[in-house]
Amino acid sequence: MYKNKLARRVKQMENGELAGLMGLIDRDDIISFAGGIPDECIFPHEQLCEITESLFEKLGSKVFQYSSTEGNRELREYLVDFLAERGIKTSFDELIITTGSQQGLDLVSKIFIDPGDIVFTEKPGYVGGIGAIKSYEAELIGIDMESDGINVEQLETELKRCSFEGRKAKFIYLVPDYSNPSGIRLSLEKRIRILELAEEYDFYILEDTPYSELTYYHETIPYIKALDKNRRVILMGTFSKFFIPGLRVAWICAEKELIDVFSRAKQNADLASNSFGQFLLTEAGRRGLLDEQLQRVLPYYKERMEAMDRALNKYMPEEVSWFDVKGGFFYWLKLPSNVTGRELFRKAIERRVAFVTGNSFFPVDSDGDNYIRLSFSKTPVDDIDKGIERLAGLIRDF
Amino acid sequence: MYKNKLARRVKQMENGELAGLMGLIDRDDIISFAGGIPDECIFPHEQLCEITESLFEKLGSKVFQYSSTEGNRELREYLVDFLAERGIKTSFDELIITTGSQQGLDLVSKIFIDPGDIVFTEKPGYVGGIGAIKSYEAELIGIDMESDGINVEQLETELKRCSFEGRKAKFIYLVPDYSNPSGIRLSLEKRIRILELAEEYDFYILEDTPYSELTYYHETIPYIKALDKNRRVILMGTFSKFFIPGLRVAWICAEKELIDVFSRAKQNADLASNSFGQFLLTEAGRRGLLDEQLQRVLPYYKERMEAMDRALNKYMPEEVSWFDVKGGFFYWLKLPSNVTGRELFRKAIERRVAFVTGNSFFPVDSDGDNYIRLSFSKTPVDDIDKGIERLAGLIRDF
Repeated sequence: MYKNKLARRVKQMENGELAGLMGLIDRDDIISFAGGIPDECIFPHEQLCEITESLFEKLGSKVFQYSSTEGNRELREYLVDFLAERGIKTSFDELIITTGSQQGLDLVSKIFIDPGDIVFTEKPGYVGGIGAIKSYEAELIGIDMESDGINVEQLETELKRCSFEGRKAKFIYLVPDYSNPSGIRLSLEKRIRILELAEEYDFYILEDTPYSELTYYHETIPYIKALDKNRRVILMGTFSKFFIPGLRVAWICAEKELIDVFSRAKQNADLASNSFGQFLLTEAGRRGLLDEQLQRVLPYYKERMEAMDRALNKYMPEEVSWFDVKGGFFYWLKLPSNVTGRELFRKAIERRVAFVTGNSFFPVDSDGDNYIRLSFSKTPVDDIDKGIERLAGLIRDF
Repeated sequence: MYKNKLARRVKQMENGELAGLMGLIDRDDIISFAGGIPDECIFPHEQLCEITESLFEKLGSKVFQYSSTEGNRELREYLVDFLAERGIKTSFDELIITTGSQQGLDLVSKIFIDPGDIVFTEKPGYVGGIGAIKSYEAELIGIDMESDGINVEQLETELKRCSFEGRKAKFIYLVPDYSNPSGIRLSLEKRIRILELAEEYDFYILEDTPYSELTYYHETIPYIKALDKNRRVILMGTFSKFFIPGLRVAWICAEKELIDVFSRAKQNADLASNSFGQFLLTEAGRRGLLDEQLQRVLPYYKERMEAMDRALNKYMPEEVSWFDVKGGFFYWLKLPSNVTGRELFRKAIERRVAFVTGNSFFPVDSDGDNYIRLSFSKTPVDDIDKGIERLAGLIRDF
């Protein structure tokens, strides 16, 4: 009965395969490179308990009352300082708190995209971004990734083509730092060039920065937003990867007029984000715990990244290739041409090792057949070695 | 720059006036009947602190890790029992946790509505429902409220008209129990009739039940879902009004195939709801605190409702009328024909009393000029008397 009633956009929301695979990867007996989420073993549990207790005492029942739609003012003021340290001058009313960055992706898509509108993104790119953008029926055009970020010549060619057809892009969606799934960082030169193109062809840059703080060799490349002189950048950030994800608290930073539109859209989407999470993060920021925690997680994840790098170099056959990684959570592997990610996955599960197949990271699903994503964030060093050895053996068997 | 890039649907999201008014109503020196939110003074603070502490101990850092998209399984199992007590037989996989009921409204609208699709709702009806539905560009048709719920003859006439035009409604949005803003409860006869019409004209019923538990004279009318033999009802429920709202945890109950579609839509919307809130509610349910709290809030809000009833009868001029109220948070007042809600609001603020003007509760904004909504949930009994006296004086002055 329901099928003939669904909106057209639901056709763009199919990801049954991924959900099906995901069911398998949480089994305890499996070495999983699938999750791509932070490791709860490193969460600052003691301090979070302490802060919670002090909030209950200090704020009483306010902790459980509705928040405003724009979010806790003190938290937004903390973020103003956080961004100032990163070269971005802003004010609290240029920020809105979102229910995770995924909500940011949804709100940006909702307020900009009419069916058929053009949006650009990385190819491969973040599955949640692709999902949100496609769910509003955009024409999503993927731009190939190179070792220093998207191919800007290709972007320009596409922009020219669109312009020739009398069409404009609404925005480009980028994860410039250690992108998911490629692990690639966008070079300074390309950041500057993309800003120039945004000005020339009149589109927004949606800069999503979940991994920007997770830079294991302290490479400093400024946020695109920090280079932005013409308000071309809508910046999204989150506490989920370097701090804790379960609170579902993230933020968008943009010109005030746009924040007002986001606020109206958020009112329709979930009224407000959860209050406890906002109070907790505000206090964690005030006490310096966010900075402190960042210093704790950097060596923790770096060790795992290096373990994966070593294992890949040691075990993988020559026909397998990957990009160099210096931050974030991911390696992106190109398999030999006779091996598809889906086939490998089925065999890997039998050998009790898991990962994510490449297809979901492409605007057009069938493009990613030869790729897989490996995450090292949740896997202990010994398991990383064991798991990669098993995987390499399976690839050789093909 | 941003204006020429916004999606068409943003035009449907304008509510600048309401937001502007809302800025005024949280001042301490004002007697406010505006909020329509539960009173944090009655939240079970001590017990919530205790539960939190025990969760931190029992679950450790899992409390701060991502949840699944469908939500905590134990919480859904608790809801199965909760609904069974209310005559609704369901199972955990017919439930999905949402980030507040507002997200439920957004997801239902997103998966069903293509631009121009017909949706019915109460007139006056909940502003957040109207907002979500309009934001997906539905043609929203309001059905007049009578003292026992929507006018079902009018609904049938509209259904016939649509059918004659070759168009079908996707769903009707109802708050059957003590609706916001009217305070009206839908009669059993009308519930049955609407189910028949849903079958005859092939549409869904979106049953939103934030106030269903807040029945101050223990009137028992079954949920529409409990009368539903043909899976016509999508049921939404929340802990926000009778327990605490700041966690942003609510739920949708529907056939499994629809839950799968909601799950894909939610993945794009915010990945998952916050984990802490879900764990806290699960444990509160398990310990019987939800039931206990319901017994505490019923006399608390009933006293305020009766105070408002007394004050209205005592002070209001004869030309002001309202529906009888037996549950929920609201009174809906029709003003004398020479008084508009907006004019009254401006004078009321000067006299330090606030409410919400009627316009935002109508699909077409200009329809509510002569109405105002009064909420008694956050206002102490003495202030209710004082505030209504002031308001009545102002109305007489016109």
